[in-house]
Amino acid sequence: MKIAKLSNAMSLQRSVEQANVNHVKTVREVIDHVRQNGDKALFDYTEKWDGAKLTNLQVTKEEVEAAFADFDPQLVQDLEEAAANIRAFHTQQVRPNIDFQLDESSYIKYKITPLDAVGLYVPGGTAAYPSSVLMNAIPAVVAGVKRVVIVSPPSKEGKLPASVLVAARIAGITEIYKVGGAQAIAALAYGTETIKSVDKITGPGNSYVALAKREVFGRVAIDMIAGPSEIAIIADDTAFADEVASDLLAQAEHDRFASSVLITTSEKLAREVQLEVERQLKQLPREDIARASIENFGCIYIAESLAKAVDAVNELAPEHLEIITEQPEIISEQIRHAGAIFIGRFSSEPVGDYFVGTNHVLPTNSTARFSSGLSVDDFIKKTSVVYYSEEMWQKHYPKIARLARLEQLEGHARSVESRSWSKEEFHDC
Amino acid sequence: MKIAKLSNAMSLQRSVEQANVNHVKTVREVIDHVRQNGDKALFDYTEKWDGAKLTNLQVTKEEVEAAFADFDPQLVQDLEEAAANIRAFHTQQVRPNIDFQLDESSYIKYKITPLDAVGLYVPGGTAAYPSSVLMNAIPAVVAGVKRVVIVSPPSKEGKLPASVLVAARIAGITEIYKVGGAQAIAALAYGTETIKSVDKITGPGNSYVALAKREVFGRVAIDMIAGPSEIAIIADDTAFADEVASDLLAQAEHDRFASSVLITTSEKLAREVQLEVERQLKQLPREDIARASIENFGCIYIAESLAKAVDAVNELAPEHLEIITEQPEIISEQIRHAGAIFIGRFSSEPVGDYFVGTNHVLPTNSTARFSSGLSVDDFIKKTSVVYYSEEMWQKHYPKIARLARLEQLEGHARSVESRSWSKEEFHDC
Repeated sequence: MKIAKLSNAMSLQRSVEQANVNHVKTVREVIDHVRQNGDKALFDYTEKWDGAKLTNLQVTKEEVEAAFADFDPQLVQDLEEAAANIRAFHTQQVRPNIDFQLDESSYIKYKITPLDAVGLYVPGGTAAYPSSVLMNAIPAVVAGVKRVVIVSPPSKEGKLPASVLVAARIAGITEIYKVGGAQAIAALAYGTETIKSVDKITGPGNSYVALAKREVFGRVAIDMIAGPSEIAIIADDTAFADEVASDLLAQAEHDRFASSVLITTSEKLAREVQLEVERQLKQLPREDIARASIENFGCIYIAESLAKAVDAVNELAPEHLEIITEQPEIISEQIRHAGAIFIGRFSSEPVGDYFVGTNHVLPTNSTARFSSGLSVDDFIKKTSVVYYSEEMWQKHYPKIARLARLEQLEGHARSVESRSWSKEEFHDC
Repeated sequence: MKIAKLSNAMSLQRSVEQANVNHVKTVREVIDHVRQNGDKALFDYTEKWDGAKLTNLQVTKEEVEAAFADFDPQLVQDLEEAAANIRAFHTQQVRPNIDFQLDESSYIKYKITPLDAVGLYVPGGTAAYPSSVLMNAIPAVVAGVKRVVIVSPPSKEGKLPASVLVAARIAGITEIYKVGGAQAIAALAYGTETIKSVDKITGPGNSYVALAKREVFGRVAIDMIAGPSEIAIIADDTAFADEVASDLLAQAEHDRFASSVLITTSEKLAREVQLEVERQLKQLPREDIARASIENFGCIYIAESLAKAVDAVNELAPEHLEIITEQPEIISEQIRHAGAIFIGRFSSEPVGDYFVGTNHVLPTNSTARFSSGLSVDDFIKKTSVVYYSEEMWQKHYPKIARLARLEQLEGHARSVESRSWSKEEFHDC
């Protein structure tokens, strides 16, 4: 792992990936095909790309119960405890309606309504991520969404991973379909005979899934286009090198494009972490992935001061930030841009990835500058409700009419003025 | 204006416009050109498309003060009162941080941080919309955004409309640039010598502006891709036909693609509104626009019951909804999908467009199913902050390690386990 002087914080940033034009074309064809042919297109693509010849898209209750019965009870209990923690913290995010009284009778209300239906994409492949199921599904359920649907590509044998089915059951999700890729996104956005359309699609996926989400954005809402995962660690000479190294590698093992950065005021720590990373890399099952990530997107920066480290992090806006210093809370208060912050040596990132209750779906690629991790807010919407009494209208309509005419919208002015006969006196005939 | 039986609510929906491929190409070229050539590209495009040969992109303080001094004092006062109302209601939307204690010392915080910098696009052309300046700028200011920038295309004389400058001054915005179109969006997203980049771009614009926003989405945040404006009105036989007609026309005068729909249980009202719309159309300055809108996207639907009307509106998810019935609040409570709701005959839509304090930037094209009008939420982001004490870590790390190994992420497991020597007893040597 390279060591460098922290001079130009901007050099930490990776650029946003450009979409592959051929992939865009493929994804558009897939979407059109699903819109035209519905379920048939889903069966065809699933056979073609996942190698699974299905007769039924929907996972049966029996399949879920069988997966649950066979699952390690200790892991069921761990997942249930994690789910309870996620539920507890996300429940804190639930907001009340706002009631804003304008006079005795006139008011504005700001009404919170959950979305009707949400689709959650769960990636397939060798590694299943039950934690992602919990992180995406539970905020929707807490928000009050009535219909939460999971789509995920099946194995050649036409099955979904047991851990995904178990996590779905724990999260309370019963509508699960064996379909992945752009075709699953198309089905969620436009609906087929079997899969009714949803209002929002969340969850990570490969580049085809990401492109498909981008294509259907507007027709439905999407969560975000997530890039490779990242961690930045601010540490001083109080940090233990082996612990810091293990945290950098936990990030690096995700994929070759993951980025792990240490910013430290201690040259001694920098050297020790460098040695530790190498030592631990050799013992890691996913050594090849982690090594590629560390070599290409990993760096140890020596900062002149913690203040300079803070500046660099605010420039970087990392997805994850660990602060392992003598007074980590003071540093934390100075951070403006980060997806999630972990304070002190006992709060390493996996605490948040799996268990403590915060969401692990977080903004990558410096988008923490302007966006947030997944939350209950992503599954509700707000409607303003206005009630003006006759008295309020009487008092204010001339101003409204003037402002409308300033914008040359005469019809708007007449709309508020049209109520004016109501205040005329009735005369004797 | 046509009258129809309300049978199939879906028929109310207009489909989402497809982007013009040639426009996409042009917009991408413009963005690349601005990224490569900075200010020079902005000057060139402004001369080419707006016919203005500028020497300076930024509006001077003197220009703003001159516009303000010359402006009708009554209108200044009206705009100031509207601004105060918008500020008051949006201040209600400001949320506190969440502090969630896990044990005596461990906690999760959910920290609200305003964005650093926001750009607001203000369309040019003959009609200037000072109300849009207030609606976009004030929520950002209330959220605590330090830098709010306005971009707007100048006239041939190199000027921005006085009303826009006056509204900007009232909203407290001092950084204003004379540049519009896709080039303005590119400048806001990537920065030039004069215009520093921002983190989010909001505000309406023509199709080039909308496409440019879509292109830079991800690099920066955007508000939404707004479609043509819409109103639905639910009315029973207590409504006055002339008032309802004037509200339909207020919407229709916006543009030819605007949609105005009345859903009523009263055949009598339907006939009267039909006659009134025609009578009032003839007296409207923007008759041609309003007539095209009413003919193509206007309809009066006769509903069997108010319950059926509610169902239709929930299917339509209109941007604006007026409820002019005997018990409008009961109807309002049944509405799940609408951008903004106006209750009773004295709360016609222009009350919200200009004055009461709610935001008039609202979701169109049925996107009220999953999205909300502009609010303070659009200008803040949330960061989770986790602090785990040694005791909490000790209690939970085996579970976290097990969940990580379930996902084949050994490095994650080792990250939480690496802290374990700290609890080992020190022995005498």
